[in-house]
Amino acid sequence: MIAIDNLLDFFLETRQYSEAICKPLEIEDYVVQPIVDVSPPKWHLGHTTWFFEEFILKAHLKNYQIFDDDFSFVFNSYYEAVGKRVVRSDRGNMSRPSVKRVYEYRSYVTAAIKTLFEIEQSKNLNDLLEIGIHHEKQHQELLLTDIKYILGNNPLQPKYSETFLDNPIENHEQDWVSVEEGIYEIGHDSEGFCYDNELGFHKVYLHDFEISNKLVTNGEYIDFIKNNGYKKFELWHAEGWDWVNQNNIKTPMYWHQIDDVWYYYTAQGLQRIALNAPLCHISYFEAFAFSQWKNCRIPTEFEWEIAQQFFPWGKRWEWTESAYLPYPKYQKADGALGEYNGKFMVNQKVLRGGSVATSNKHTRYTYRNFFQPNLRWQFTGLRLAK
Amino acid sequence: MIAIDNLLDFFLETRQYSEAICKPLEIEDYVVQPIVDVSPPKWHLGHTTWFFEEFILKAHLKNYQIFDDDFSFVFNSYYEAVGKRVVRSDRGNMSRPSVKRVYEYRSYVTAAIKTLFEIEQSKNLNDLLEIGIHHEKQHQELLLTDIKYILGNNPLQPKYSETFLDNPIENHEQDWVSVEEGIYEIGHDSEGFCYDNELGFHKVYLHDFEISNKLVTNGEYIDFIKNNGYKKFELWHAEGWDWVNQNNIKTPMYWHQIDDVWYYYTAQGLQRIALNAPLCHISYFEAFAFSQWKNCRIPTEFEWEIAQQFFPWGKRWEWTESAYLPYPKYQKADGALGEYNGKFMVNQKVLRGGSVATSNKHTRYTYRNFFQPNLRWQFTGLRLAK
Amino acid sequence: MIAIDNLLDFFLETRQYSEAICKPLEIEDYVVQPIVDVSPPKWHLGHTTWFFEEFILKAHLKNYQIFDDDFSFVFNSYYEAVGKRVVRSDRGNMSRPSVKRVYEYRSYVTAAIKTLFEIEQSKNLNDLLEIGIHHEKQHQELLLTDIKYILGNNPLQPKYSETFLDNPIENHEQDWVSVEEGIYEIGHDSEGFCYDNELGFHKVYLHDFEISNKLVTNGEYIDFIKNNGYKKFELWHAEGWDWVNQNNIKTPMYWHQIDDVWYYYTAQGLQRIALNAPLCHISYFEAFAFSQWKNCRIPTEFEWEIAQQFFPWGKRWEWTESAYLPYPKYQKADGALGEYNGKFMVNQKVLRGGSVATSNKHTRYTYRNFFQPNLRWQFTGLRLAK
Amino acid sequence: MIAIDNLLDFFLETRQYSEAICKPLEIEDYVVQPIVDVSPPKWHLGHTTWFFEEFILKAHLKNYQIFDDDFSFVFNSYYEAVGKRVVRSDRGNMSRPSVKRVYEYRSYVTAAIKTLFEIEQSKNLNDLLEIGIHHEKQHQELLLTDIKYILGNNPLQPKYSETFLDNPIENHEQDWVSVEEGIYEIGHDSEGFCYDNELGFHKVYLHDFEISNKLVTNGEYIDFIKNNGYKKFELWHAEGWDWVNQNNIKTPMYWHQIDDVWYYYTAQGLQRIALNAPLCHISYFEAFAFSQWKNCRIPTEFEWEIAQQFFPWGKRWEWTESAYLPYPKYQKADGALGEYNGKFMVNQKVLRGGSVATSNKHTRYTYRNFFQPNLRWQFTGLRLAK
Repeated sequence: MIAIDNLLDFFLETRQYSEAICKPLEIEDYVVQPIVDVSPPKWHLGHTTWFFEEFILKAHLKNYQIFDDDFSFVFNSYYEAVGKRVVRSDRGNMSRPSVKRVYEYRSYVTAAIKTLFEIEQSKNLNDLLEIGIHHEKQHQELLLTDIKYILGNNPLQPKYSETFLDNPIENHEQDWVSVEEGIYEIGHDSEGFCYDNELGFHKVYLHDFEISNKLVTNGEYIDFIKNNGYKKFELWHAEGWDWVNQNNIKTPMYWHQIDDVWYYYTAQGLQRIALNAPLCHISYFEAFAFSQWKNCRIPTEFEWEIAQQFFPWGKRWEWTESAYLPYPKYQKADGALGEYNGKFMVNQKVLRGGSVATSNKHTRYTYRNFFQPNLRWQFTGLRLAK
Repeated sequence: MIAIDNLLDFFLETRQYSEAICKPLEIEDYVVQPIVDVSPPKWHLGHTTWFFEEFILKAHLKNYQIFDDDFSFVFNSYYEAVGKRVVRSDRGNMSRPSVKRVYEYRSYVTAAIKTLFEIEQSKNLNDLLEIGIHHEKQHQELLLTDIKYILGNNPLQPKYSETFLDNPIENHEQDWVSVEEGIYEIGHDSEGFCYDNELGFHKVYLHDFEISNKLVTNGEYIDFIKNNGYKKFELWHAEGWDWVNQNNIKTPMYWHQIDDVWYYYTAQGLQRIALNAPLCHISYFEAFAFSQWKNCRIPTEFEWEIAQQFFPWGKRWEWTESAYLPYPKYQKADGALGEYNGKFMVNQKVLRGGSVATSNKHTRYTYRNFFQPNLRWQFTGLRLAK
Repeated sequence: MIAIDNLLDFFLETRQYSEAICKPLEIEDYVVQPIVDVSPPKWHLGHTTWFFEEFILKAHLKNYQIFDDDFSFVFNSYYEAVGKRVVRSDRGNMSRPSVKRVYEYRSYVTAAIKTLFEIEQSKNLNDLLEIGIHHEKQHQELLLTDIKYILGNNPLQPKYSETFLDNPIENHEQDWVSVEEGIYEIGHDSEGFCYDNELGFHKVYLHDFEISNKLVTNGEYIDFIKNNGYKKFELWHAEGWDWVNQNNIKTPMYWHQIDDVWYYYTAQGLQRIALNAPLCHISYFEAFAFSQWKNCRIPTEFEWEIAQQFFPWGKRWEWTESAYLPYPKYQKADGALGEYNGKFMVNQKVLRGGSVATSNKHTRYTYRNFFQPNLRWQFTGLRLAK
Repeated sequence: MIAIDNLLDFFLETRQYSEAICKPLEIEDYVVQPIVDVSPPKWHLGHTTWFFEEFILKAHLKNYQIFDDDFSFVFNSYYEAVGKRVVRSDRGNMSRPSVKRVYEYRSYVTAAIKTLFEIEQSKNLNDLLEIGIHHEKQHQELLLTDIKYILGNNPLQPKYSETFLDNPIENHEQDWVSVEEGIYEIGHDSEGFCYDNELGFHKVYLHDFEISNKLVTNGEYIDFIKNNGYKKFELWHAEGWDWVNQNNIKTPMYWHQIDDVWYYYTAQGLQRIALNAPLCHISYFEAFAFSQWKNCRIPTEFEWEIAQQFFPWGKRWEWTESAYLPYPKYQKADGALGEYNGKFMVNQKVLRGGSVATSNKHTRYTYRNFFQPNLRWQFTGLRLAK
């Protein structure tokens, strides 16, 4: 348990950082939702705030005055237990509440949380605050991915920021790490914060495997494209092949070929592709096809968790072969917070590691991220195994 | 032909009025597109400007410097002759260009037009300017209908303005105007401006008919609802009946029944429905079903044009029974401007009159407005005939 | 009024002819519904039979025993007044009732009608029988168009029959018929049978026009294709242009270009296209684009009705420029039969004439056929006007 | 390796059994495809035949004359390596080839296989024949599920057969089997036939678990429905909850509540539900929600494979919690046959056991069946674990 002073500082820093992410935006950028997966930045700012209001202030701060009765409807994401909400695809249709009002909402709730924690402290309250902080950190990564999508899919391709470098180069030599067959232990077993889906510390049996110490690079992926990787059905899952053809997929997201030169949209605008930077914005389907083409495979999340101590990670969320399923003895949390993880445990893939967009203290080697296999707007990449 | 000084004044007034319409908006309101028919206000502001740049400045102002090369792609609506464009359903996905930049674009183009007309005047240029002005006036009505939709479909139901009264009451007695069988003349035959679809002055043969001197009111329509008008298939076209059932239509657009009292969203926010105000925001399908229920019918556009001298009009665009078709000897204009009207002459209905949202000098008794029969976000109403 | 003996003969001949049309079919051909517009032949055979049972036998034949209680659900087409029914798109999903059972149903109902008319005769009954006969004749044309679609869209392209010649050649010289401006009379005004939509004999004012004495031929249409008619947006309605692009339309239905030679599927299988045969299986959108390319136009249904005495017709249903709308003073029939025509009077186009597939005694110069502008599986063609 | 005489007998028996399954059908039943997952019976008969022709006869029987050049296009299912094919959703739109011709095709190919195996025998040929036989057996189960769907979704609800009893009662007492924590071995390790997805014999580590010796019954499931199981979002996956609401799901497939009595469609027609029969035709989503309601869980495929020796199985395909993923060291077969299994290893769930519809010798305790989690037309059921 974190001491309360540190926790409040952690809370305030987190609140400030969300707003810092949005500093470079125009008001207009806060509003749009070009695809259903991408939420408007003002929605993220409001939703993370609503989370503290709904799960902490309403229940625990005496005489707390709700900021605006309509906001529960507007800013609930998917908590069925908490009542009705704007359907997800309508988030970008709402010009109001205005950005200014959302910032007022943030200040109001931040202040109320301070007030509450100056009056009262308890294990239960601290746990709730801690989950609220981690929830906001999770949305900080989504803010970055969603802003990139909003700007990167605009025909004007505006820059986001000079300081968020989303395509860092890696120069170490590629090599294979070998792990021996045997029983290994998986899951969260220490003091610090984790989500319910990491609990259920348990044993797995792994067979001999090798795993790369380096992420797949853009250069390697250009070879795959040149070798007609997107046209060879035998490399793809049936569902992946349909996805390629129905969406006319020919490159990772944000890539453009102009006069035979490869470019990608980055947070600094359109740039020539760095061959040594780790591949990014690929779907699981593309990760799989590439691994087939290389006569390799994608590691499971268990292999990754055991081997991760032997290589650097954290630049790309790494697709794994593992489906997102409950660990043995998994128990979902009680009440509305129980909707956080468990109800998504079907038809999604686990990603491990973390990315350039992951907030400080928001990943760890037991962290289980998860997305549908066709999604690419996160900072997703690939590490091979065999 | 309007004298050039008057025409320039007319141009400048028109440009100012578009901006006046947007005065009450927040920046955020300029951006969203909640349904495909509703364009973001900033798009209207940019598109009307692009029209002057594309069809006048590029061709006629020597050394004219295009404001931004990307804007033709962003602000073209449907002119195939002019090149590629953002697909209509994506207009609300574009946060950039910013509202500020769109206003700069407006100032730049307005100034360039002034410059051009101070240098050069000709019949051809004046005609082009006049069509550009009328084009912008047409978009002024769309600005008002689209703003109403954006705010009226927001869960917070914010007000637009205290001064735009969209539900004025009419107190004159309902009566029937009789017109005798015979040959009548239809179409535009005077000096002033008109669109190509009003030309082809021609004769029609009308049979005896009667037409109401008053629009159908909200009070009458509430009777239709109470009499289960929305549940009696025999009142509806087959296509209208499908539309009612697939969209679960039970009232005109913007109506809400709260604790047995009828309300509607107006430019001043949610209000009790005025029984004496003319019915608004109905589809042609609803107009037809109501007229069947009354044992009446909807007048044709020819009946309307001949009878309009005998009653007040201009509060609601009045659905007619007439399909939008070319008049005999219709000739569409040459070049890109030929796409203005003719290519929409299938599967649409003619509306006559004008509405509370119609700009000054932008309607006349020969004016042919047209929309698909299911659309309701315009200020549409109904006048009965028999 | 037709004498009852003749009427019964007319009834029996009509019943036999429907079955004769289906003679060349395999059992399997009776069942499928490759697109929603095309009904399975067994459905047509059952539906026309149900029409006699529902509207005549149930009400008028004492102690009539319904053949099968489920058939009303299965064979109702669109009569809301008569109760629930299989949704149209599900007709091809029903393997039962079997073809054999449908033929038994036909025999049973045909015999019951005979019995009824031997017992009882009245103006009302005769009128009902007559409408039932014409209803079946209308479905005979649909049987032929639907069978052609079922076989012609099968990859094996099987023949239907050696005797139904759907592409007869016309050798007369093309010429223009002139009609003078004036008042003309339109609609059905004689003794014989007609539908309610032809009534309302009334006057129209026509301006001078010329109309071709010959249908547009395949040869002329090949010139249009060679001249990139399908690629010139300026020839098309906006809605037509979308239709062309979304459906990748490059030729009329059933046309194939193999090694630079043009073929079409006919009732006798795949054949080289006859240049002198009248063009067939085009949409209204194609008819319009072709007429624009020729600097001509499509005649209105009124022009056609007045001019038809001066040229041969009956090989192709001819698209007209007229929308399908009620004539002045149109009254729809009472009860379920009122659903026959009136409820379709929106978003459809009138076709005039008749086709190679039209049954004996089932067309006349006042007959108003109607379809949506994108449909092509009927035997549709084009006559130009100017 | 099976001796060749036995293998030929096995082949002939299999070919006969497919035809025996179709004996009770009308010709019409062979043709329809009411949903995309359900193929027309004649397609199954043709496709299993094409498999022998394509993968054995073309390559191995000298001077073999292809039965019909068009059949490869018509009867290929999903083998991209073999060329173009009819899109799956169009299978029910093809009335030809006729059922008679498909049976001729069967006889022709069966005879050719006999000829080939009388001339030549080899390990390779035998392996191919064996896989073809198992392929046909797999389609025999699909024939039964698809026929049930075709008849059971027909408004007339015709019987299929008196002898295929799809809802057998189970009377043994429910009890829990305990399995101890430890390393276990998984996968196919014996002589007999298996698919590539069962190979890769390997170790897993299982934790203590208990598993029911009995399938969930209809009676238990009625309790779940009565307890509003379909209305409690907290029991469902998010994706399952959407599925329930979008499809208005309230019962398993084929269930009907008539005057408060529960019925289901069976191979013998509509019957009262047997409370003691094992639950059938549920999706994985329903299996999961039911298990949550019971405070239990669904076993993994590994738990099932280890525990299966302690309980009877084979009446229902049992949903497992396991996603369909490759075993460690999985190698897909070379060439077109490599498309058999591997390319489906994403977004599907493993089912274990077998069902009343599974053909003789077509299941075993290592068999991995797989379907998408929303599908219900297979004979799917549930066994609980904890």
